[in-house]
Parts: sequence; C-alpha cells; structure tokens
Amino acid sequence: MYGKFLVEGHKTVLELLSSGFKIDSIYATAKWISENKINFNVLIAEVTEAELQKIATHENPQEVIAVANIPASSADAQLKKGKYIALDQINDPGNAGTIIRIADWFGLDGVIFSENSVDVFNPKVVSAAKGSLFRVPFYYMDLEKCFAANGHFPVLGTFMEGESIYSKQFPTDGILLIGNEANGISESLSAAIQHRISIPKFGQAESLNAGVAAGILISEWKKQA
Amino acid sequence: MYGKFLVEGHKTVLELLSSGFKIDSIYATAKWISENKINFNVLIAEVTEAELQKIATHENPQEVIAVANIPASSADAQLKKGKYIALDQINDPGNAGTIIRIADWFGLDGVIFSENSVDVFNPKVVSAAKGSLFRVPFYYMDLEKCFAANGHFPVLGTFMEGESIYSKQFPTDGILLIGNEANGISESLSAAIQHRISIPKFGQAESLNAGVAAGILISEWKKQA
Repeated sequence: MYGKFLVEGHKTVLELLSSGFKIDSIYATAKWISENKINFNVLIAEVTEAELQKIATHENPQEVIAVANIPASSADAQLKKGKYIALDQINDPGNAGTIIRIADWFGLDGVIFSENSVDVFNPKVVSAAKGSLFRVPFYYMDLEKCFAANGHFPVLGTFMEGESIYSKQFPTDGILLIGNEANGISESLSAAIQHRISIPKFGQAESLNAGVAAGILISEWKKQA
Repeated sequence: MYGKFLVEGHKTVLELLSSGFKIDSIYATAKWISENKINFNVLIAEVTEAELQKIATHENPQEVIAVANIPASSADAQLKKGKYIALDQINDPGNAGTIIRIADWFGLDGVIFSENSVDVFNPKVVSAAKGSLFRVPFYYMDLEKCFAANGHFPVLGTFMEGESIYSKQFPTDGILLIGNEANGISESLSAAIQHRISIPKFGQAESLNAGVAAGILISEWKKQA
C-alpha cells in the first residue's frame, strides 16, 4: 500500500473527513454507514466487524477504517516566523503522536522531525495524534541543515544544568528541540542550541517522558509569548 | 503468579534492587550476571536470551527480568499534608506509568488511583514508570470516600471553562484530580472539586493526553507552592 496510510476509529476518521487530506476509501460497518451520511466523493465499502478486525492494527478496532493518501512532503528548508518544535530521533510512535497533539493544542507553527525519527503515518502515531496530524504542519529534515538554514531562529533545548523555565525569558520565535527518549539531544546538534533550559526537579525520577517534557516546556513558552 | 509482578530491563531492575521492594527471583543472561555483581540475598537464575524472550511481555526484552513481591497495600484513608494526584479511572497503562514518573520528578506526596483504574503492577505500567513505581507512594481508594475523609484538602480538577492555570493561585496542599482519557471527570466526583481550572488552548486539538495534562498542571502547581 504505497503512498497510503490507515486511519482507524470513528472520531479520527471524522477529523480526516473534515481535513484537506485526500481519502482513498472507507471500510465501515452497515451501522456506521447508516449513522454517518458521508457527502464526499469517496468509495465506501460495507464490511463486517470481523473483516474490520483483520484490517485493523489496533486491538480494539472501532466501526470504521479509512485509507488516505500521504500528501507530497514539502521540502521547505526556510521556516516562516513562529514557534516550532523539533524532534531529534523520536522513536516511540506514542510520543510522536502526543507531541503533534500538543503542537495543535498550543497552536504551534509546525513540528520538524529529524530524518531518523518514526514515520508519522505509522498507525500508532496517527492514533496518538487524535486528528491533530491533519491540522499541524510537519516536516522531515536534516536538523543540522535546518538550524543552519534558519540561523535567525533561536534554538532551545533542555539540559540538566540549563536555566530554569520558571525564570527563563523565552524568545518570541524559535525552535524547541526535544531529544531522543533514551539518549537525549545528539552531540552534533547541541552546538546549535543558544538557549539551554531545564524543567526544575523536586524529586528523584531520572527524567520525564518526552511528550510530558514537551508539554511543560511549550506551556511555559506560550504563557510568556 | 499471585502476589508477584514482573520487572523487565536493566535500568528498572537496578532501581528495583535499590528499593525496599522484596524480590523473589531474577532471570538474567550470563553476560548480565557477570557484569552486575548482586550482593543481595536473591535467587538468580541464568537463562538464555531466547528463554528471557518467552518470559518477557515487552517486544524487546533486555538481558534481565525480575519477579518481585507486590507489597501489602495500605488502606489509609487519611492523607498527610501535601500535594497528591488522584486518577479517576485511568485505563491506559502508559498514562498511569507516565503519571507516576511525573509524581516522582516533582516530588509529590502520593498518587491515588480510583478502584477501577489500571493495575499499577501491569508490566506496561511498571515499564512506563521507569523505576518511579518503587519510590512514589500510591493507593487504591474509592475517590468519593477519599475526598470526604480528607475534607480539609482542596480538590482541583480541569474543566473547559475553568480558571486559567496561568493566573490561578494554587493552594499549598491539595489533591489534583485527572479524569478518564475519554470521558473526563466522573459526574459523581465533580461536586467535590472546589478549584475548577484549565490549561489555556491556543489551537484546535480537542484535548491533551492525560499524562501531558498532568505534567503541565503539576509543573504550574509546584512552581507556585
């Protein structure tokens, strides 16, 4: 199934239908079809729940699955003014989807994935992003080149000894870099980080989950600017 | 395997070993055993990687798995002064583990699970909590009874129309209630919430992941008090 991706479940399929994404086909139960009058030019195939279960990647499939077209990726290296989040080799699909959802909630201008990050069209990312994937601009880039091509944008990243986000004055525009789940920010990228920040720690956990850290950092950033 | 739970992977097993939890047995490869001299009175069985794979619940097992004893649960309804997080029917093991890790990072005084929440000794919770499970006090309680028995503690909960956490004055002590992933806070509990708060939304996502929301709320709370 080249150039296509799966969207599973009622809520996310409805978000897909109201997005600009091109839909290839929809597989749904008779009940779902009768309850959801779809006025789009799209092939709808009636299937049984047992058949849906065979297509589904989730353990608990719902009544509908759509096949959509992966849009042509824009290779724009030049970013417009705004607030971005960059992900340095994020491997966990749940984290990637959660971060896209955070970017949507806080109205960020885009999510930039390093080329070795998880594929956003992985069904687990689609599921964790809960429809935000259809709204948030995202890019796959070589992050070193991206930072070099956007030298006017400050880059922010977390380090144990970084300045507390509770006292930090954030820049209005910039790119917040989130490191890999196990290894943090790559050595090769750390030279590009002008703002070394940290989330204060009061207890003993070694680290926070990448999605949780992204949420706390972006909340503080949006609060100020 | 009644009264026992599995701990998988090098880092989490090391955290288990340095905790007060009673360990039943350890299954490890010859390599792990030679690299980790364990000075504890615990049965260590040498197994092959293929054997470990059969015991493991993770797709990528590491070199070691421990079987530990589930501690006797304390039924203390009366909480000591401090900051707590309560979870109203959290079903997703990843969310439960992530929230225990947040509670550990921010040094909260405990996590209170509603009785119909996921089991913290589920291997996926143990894995997501990354060792924090061995440090953070947690309880299973009927939340209505818990709030009634601790009437001197203010209860905080998020609602769409709640006061922004960016301007809110948080109480020093209290219980922050996080609702179910799909349905939010139960009707029967909402009457007990004195502080109705919200995370400001700048974009379009319908909601945030429960773990991310917990992280942002607790960060704001700890920042103040």
